[in-house]
Amino acid sequence: MIDLHAAVADLRTWQEALYQDLHRHPELSLQEHATAERIETELRELGLTTERIGGTGVVAVIENGDGPTVLERADIDGLPVTEASGLPYASEEPGRMHACGHDVHISTLLGAVRVLTAHRDAWHGTFIALFQPAEETAQGARAMVADGLVDRIPRPDVALAQHVMPGAAGRIGTLAGPLLCQGDSLRVTIHGRGAHGSMPHSAQDPVVVASAIVLRLQTIVARELRPGTFGVVTVGALNAGTKSNIIPATAELLLNVRTYDPAVREHVLAAIRRIVDGECAAAGIETPADIELYDAFPLTSNDPEVTATVTGALTAALGEESMEEAEPTTGSEDFSCIPDAFGTPYTSWVLGGFDPEAYDRAVERGTVAQDIPANHALNYTPVMQPTLSAGTTALVAAALAYMGS
Amino acid sequence: MIDLHAAVADLRTWQEALYQDLHRHPELSLQEHATAERIETELRELGLTTERIGGTGVVAVIENGDGPTVLERADIDGLPVTEASGLPYASEEPGRMHACGHDVHISTLLGAVRVLTAHRDAWHGTFIALFQPAEETAQGARAMVADGLVDRIPRPDVALAQHVMPGAAGRIGTLAGPLLCQGDSLRVTIHGRGAHGSMPHSAQDPVVVASAIVLRLQTIVARELRPGTFGVVTVGALNAGTKSNIIPATAELLLNVRTYDPAVREHVLAAIRRIVDGECAAAGIETPADIELYDAFPLTSNDPEVTATVTGALTAALGEESMEEAEPTTGSEDFSCIPDAFGTPYTSWVLGGFDPEAYDRAVERGTVAQDIPANHALNYTPVMQPTLSAGTTALVAAALAYMGS
Amino acid sequence: MIDLHAAVADLRTWQEALYQDLHRHPELSLQEHATAERIETELRELGLTTERIGGTGVVAVIENGDGPTVLERADIDGLPVTEASGLPYASEEPGRMHACGHDVHISTLLGAVRVLTAHRDAWHGTFIALFQPAEETAQGARAMVADGLVDRIPRPDVALAQHVMPGAAGRIGTLAGPLLCQGDSLRVTIHGRGAHGSMPHSAQDPVVVASAIVLRLQTIVARELRPGTFGVVTVGALNAGTKSNIIPATAELLLNVRTYDPAVREHVLAAIRRIVDGECAAAGIETPADIELYDAFPLTSNDPEVTATVTGALTAALGEESMEEAEPTTGSEDFSCIPDAFGTPYTSWVLGGFDPEAYDRAVERGTVAQDIPANHALNYTPVMQPTLSAGTTALVAAALAYMGS
Amino acid sequence: MIDLHAAVADLRTWQEALYQDLHRHPELSLQEHATAERIETELRELGLTTERIGGTGVVAVIENGDGPTVLERADIDGLPVTEASGLPYASEEPGRMHACGHDVHISTLLGAVRVLTAHRDAWHGTFIALFQPAEETAQGARAMVADGLVDRIPRPDVALAQHVMPGAAGRIGTLAGPLLCQGDSLRVTIHGRGAHGSMPHSAQDPVVVASAIVLRLQTIVARELRPGTFGVVTVGALNAGTKSNIIPATAELLLNVRTYDPAVREHVLAAIRRIVDGECAAAGIETPADIELYDAFPLTSNDPEVTATVTGALTAALGEESMEEAEPTTGSEDFSCIPDAFGTPYTSWVLGGFDPEAYDRAVERGTVAQDIPANHALNYTPVMQPTLSAGTTALVAAALAYMGS
Repeated sequence: MIDLHAAVADLRTWQEALYQDLHRHPELSLQEHATAERIETELRELGLTTERIGGTGVVAVIENGDGPTVLERADIDGLPVTEASGLPYASEEPGRMHACGHDVHISTLLGAVRVLTAHRDAWHGTFIALFQPAEETAQGARAMVADGLVDRIPRPDVALAQHVMPGAAGRIGTLAGPLLCQGDSLRVTIHGRGAHGSMPHSAQDPVVVASAIVLRLQTIVARELRPGTFGVVTVGALNAGTKSNIIPATAELLLNVRTYDPAVREHVLAAIRRIVDGECAAAGIETPADIELYDAFPLTSNDPEVTATVTGALTAALGEESMEEAEPTTGSEDFSCIPDAFGTPYTSWVLGGFDPEAYDRAVERGTVAQDIPANHALNYTPVMQPTLSAGTTALVAAALAYMGS
Repeated sequence: MIDLHAAVADLRTWQEALYQDLHRHPELSLQEHATAERIETELRELGLTTERIGGTGVVAVIENGDGPTVLERADIDGLPVTEASGLPYASEEPGRMHACGHDVHISTLLGAVRVLTAHRDAWHGTFIALFQPAEETAQGARAMVADGLVDRIPRPDVALAQHVMPGAAGRIGTLAGPLLCQGDSLRVTIHGRGAHGSMPHSAQDPVVVASAIVLRLQTIVARELRPGTFGVVTVGALNAGTKSNIIPATAELLLNVRTYDPAVREHVLAAIRRIVDGECAAAGIETPADIELYDAFPLTSNDPEVTATVTGALTAALGEESMEEAEPTTGSEDFSCIPDAFGTPYTSWVLGGFDPEAYDRAVERGTVAQDIPANHALNYTPVMQPTLSAGTTALVAAALAYMGS
Repeated sequence: MIDLHAAVADLRTWQEALYQDLHRHPELSLQEHATAERIETELRELGLTTERIGGTGVVAVIENGDGPTVLERADIDGLPVTEASGLPYASEEPGRMHACGHDVHISTLLGAVRVLTAHRDAWHGTFIALFQPAEETAQGARAMVADGLVDRIPRPDVALAQHVMPGAAGRIGTLAGPLLCQGDSLRVTIHGRGAHGSMPHSAQDPVVVASAIVLRLQTIVARELRPGTFGVVTVGALNAGTKSNIIPATAELLLNVRTYDPAVREHVLAAIRRIVDGECAAAGIETPADIELYDAFPLTSNDPEVTATVTGALTAALGEESMEEAEPTTGSEDFSCIPDAFGTPYTSWVLGGFDPEAYDRAVERGTVAQDIPANHALNYTPVMQPTLSAGTTALVAAALAYMGS
Repeated sequence: MIDLHAAVADLRTWQEALYQDLHRHPELSLQEHATAERIETELRELGLTTERIGGTGVVAVIENGDGPTVLERADIDGLPVTEASGLPYASEEPGRMHACGHDVHISTLLGAVRVLTAHRDAWHGTFIALFQPAEETAQGARAMVADGLVDRIPRPDVALAQHVMPGAAGRIGTLAGPLLCQGDSLRVTIHGRGAHGSMPHSAQDPVVVASAIVLRLQTIVARELRPGTFGVVTVGALNAGTKSNIIPATAELLLNVRTYDPAVREHVLAAIRRIVDGECAAAGIETPADIELYDAFPLTSNDPEVTATVTGALTAALGEESMEEAEPTTGSEDFSCIPDAFGTPYTSWVLGGFDPEAYDRAVERGTVAQDIPANHALNYTPVMQPTLSAGTTALVAAALAYMGS
């Protein structure tokens, strides 16, 4: 048996330095070159072999005799945000920031690898540490799968992940079933006919058509879904024209759809097509609108059995007082693409990363974005402790729940 | 008496070379530096004194004894268009083109000055040749007025202008009363509240509000104006947001309003304010929307008496077969700011500039923009003759209608 | 030659009594039984033969030697309005009123017949007095044509009509060309799917679809017609549902379309179909909406030559000071169906019927409907004189312009 | 102990005759005169004293020594529906039907009173049988409270009710927490300005404003409520105008709002006011729209402890196989007004009333309304058995759970 508390405490100096260094040098999705090299260096220092999968994805497979295969995944990309945290280790890259805590994910998974490699006698089986690029754009997990992931590493029996969130530092939330929703992004391009602004009769005005579409889209959630069903149809962008006196030929809408139920998702996507087509037809536009699904986050639905096992292990390791039931959120991520590619059950849990009191004070000072302090904000900077130690402990404990001797 | 036919014919070589040179080197509004210098050079070669008014505006006052004062105006700016005419003298400036025929206006007014200065015995009075910048942006006439025009030149008894249009080359159209409408451009900025795309309940979605505004604006022309009243409310641009999953905080609409009747204009502008405010209120947005009137073309309403006098003179000079009654158009320009500053009556006429047969063939070949071949198109290139000779003759004949002995 | 002034003055006692009697007993469209009998009685008293055409239509053909054939038409129906004029001869029929002055039309045409039959030596030709039912519902003229009008009376060389309007009593307005617009009424029925009000997901909500249609219809006049084109698309009625908690299965819209140009009318009707279909499609409704054209008033476009002839004759008879140029109105009527059936040129003029001063005082007292005192109001009661005498004089003078010796 | 099975079986002949008689003679809300008298007669035959509260409400208080006070409530009104069931005991009143099963509620509660009065030795305490009028219009419970209910009967320790629903006959569904939502009905009257259909510029068109409101209301559920929140805003009726060529002065909308969370309800009602006001303002309408809340059903949220106790008792009495967990529905009722007036905990359960096989065959034959066979349909006729026996057993067993010795 590992003395988890001691093993994790020993990592502290190394882990905090690593975390600060990662935080200073965030890289954007699919461009995580230095980050991937740093991860490789850290893994090789432990004598491990690494493999690049999906460009900037890094995987280390640690075999340790017969036993279950456990995969743990960390995502590694930053965001196009300019940090405004005032921290001594704030991002040194203007316009880039680890504003979603992926640096915590890297640091804790590398910490877990350190603990596991240092205590090979305490477990049996195969541990896979998977560092995934481009979670923010929903491209990274699919890129790894497309690059042959399933054939290049052993099939895991279980897949695990954690995500740092705006909760009390060190607190863990688990939930069986749907935790994160599906998120689809669509680009709708209306092909009208332009004309001089004073000649509307010569145009098929795409601004009017786009506006009619926006209003009509509201009826999907308001009238077509059963009351109380989770669903969101957001038009995040509507762009048409550049001058007041020129009626443009086209209008572009960027839509975001959020659902938990695949049947609801299908209904919503079909309704969008139907409404766009109907509104174009009402305007006499014969060229079909283009509707491109350019971004799709999968549903994250935690396996009940895996969740129960992991919850038990984490409770034992961190104490009852550190555990809570997570709530389904309106967010999305792409982790589940990886276990789904293998047909492997999975669970993903939530790791609180904020000093509740400091956080409340920040809210009072108005330094957090709006009234929803959230991931992606300019000052989304978890406190290092106990976030890093709790996250590392959780990863080790969850892995040992399957592989522990 | 001048033999106008001979006098204009003598200009041909000089005038065509001048025209081609101007056409090769268009300059954008308020940046007509080389053009203004070229005009000054041409005027000084005739022994005239020139004055800069309104930056790149050029005026020459030619005194020739007692008699009426006649002002003729040419606008001089080009457009941000890349020429696609295939002409040997096509624009050499990428992204700039004389696509509205202002080079014809300069060449014919300089031609008229040549004829008048060469025949000082045929007229008495004061002739003012005024070359105005920035017509395309409705800034130039006002810039000249703001720069002291009224105090720096004699008050004209009558003001005249012509504009080359897509008609048969050499044909002139005159019209008493309103010829060109008022054109106002407004920038409407909606101040909502942004949020993550999955959290509409935290936002005041400006995309929805802007769309409701666009649909509701349709009721101004459809329901608020007396049926048959001329009025246009175009939303030429609607821009909000950049990503599907971020609800933006603001939306910007660029509106173009066209009217002939000032009371209708007032009603429409008030209705826009009312609708924008009402739709923001419906969304619970308390920050008032910004509505900025950033561009305003005045009404061009030809004085009946001046129009009758000029029509008579032009008919005598060019023949009955060259004359027609113009139709009020949906377009606008800023010439009338100048006579209005003096309280002077004016008329503006239309000069056809196209070989009707060649033009028809072009339409068949599909090389003209859409089905509305019009000013501002990539191939809006009048034929040189008889456009230049007819335009020069018209300017001289109209001036002599007042100053001729 | 007839002394028109004396001849008309002689009618006064009879004509005012006739008018008051008609005014007391209005009858609704297609139910003008007593009115038709009264007209027949009056005509027979003059020794004339009458014919019933189109049910309650009455025609008398008065042959008087060789010469042109002139048709004059009066419409005879009242409206479903309860009179609130306070006149001693107000309607005695609750819910019925001559609120559009058809009693003036009958009285003046019968007066004209009296004058013409009394002075047969003053004219040569054939005079046709035609009393038409059901003008208000656009049914009467067509009913007479359908009942064989063209084969049952001589073909007129010219057809004439007048309509009393809210102008100064005794003043006549004439206009060559379009005077009254086309008016079409359409019934649009949306076939959605009803459900309990708490179950929108089980419904195809026709209330939402109808609302989207109403807003989208605004774009026809605002964006599809050339600016300044006369066109009206009114949704006069929208009715759907009876209880808050039941989503109805259908919605009904009653549309009124007004146009002067047949091509514009065709465009508008096609656009309505297109918009209704598009909006139903956007809602996923597969049952096509019913669109029924249930009422159609034709264009009234006065023949220029006939109008000139009539204007001259009326000016001679009534004096320059009684004449003015009429303005095209937004109203409609069905007179032109009759000359159109024969291919006969026609003109229709406007007869002022109100004491301007009394009228102004009424407006001040607020006893006229809203700010648009107009035909169909509860107190639309022309003053008897000089309305009746001027209207009679006009009918005789116009007929004599063709048949006078 | 009572042998419930035998006691209920003994009632069968009397109970089925009573039920058929009630079913034949339904009465509308607040007009349940004969029904109330029949209930009084039945109760008095058992030697009980009755009291009229709230007009047609009937209450009998049965004291039986010390012990808890239990209130059971049945609603008694029918619906304005013409029955189309084909049953021998179908409604004999055209336009009225017990289409929501209140006749089952009366019959089973009278049955329970019979059992309890026949077995006074088996229980101790006070039993209150409350027969409430006008549930369908949400008026009856409030009418009883307004008529002094709280002061006129003993305060119950627990209040119970059941409702027959489209489930398998004899099956009972219970649920702790919210079972039925709040339902509010609002009448919105828009005060525009009418005009002739050809004169939109003289009107403030309420049809356009009402349509804009309907579309904008969609944003409340779609954008203002947190995704997944239960909320419905239905416009069940929109009525404006009667003729195509008259723009009406007013439009009336009937809205239905359904919510489970009082804060959500407050938000929705405020948003409706905001949207109506904003859309009227956009049209320049200064007269405020009338918004009348004319009907309000309260939330039905079952007390967890009472529900657990009752579920246990019903399971013991009817068997595990007869019990299921009910689902929250989109419907509403007014029962909770009564316990809320006393501050008493309550539970309401669902009683299945249909032969599943016969029901399925009816659906196949297409004789049930649409695809949502539901309360209020023309053939909503529960089978008598085992509906009546199970409902009676349930009421007795639930009462004895508190008062049983």
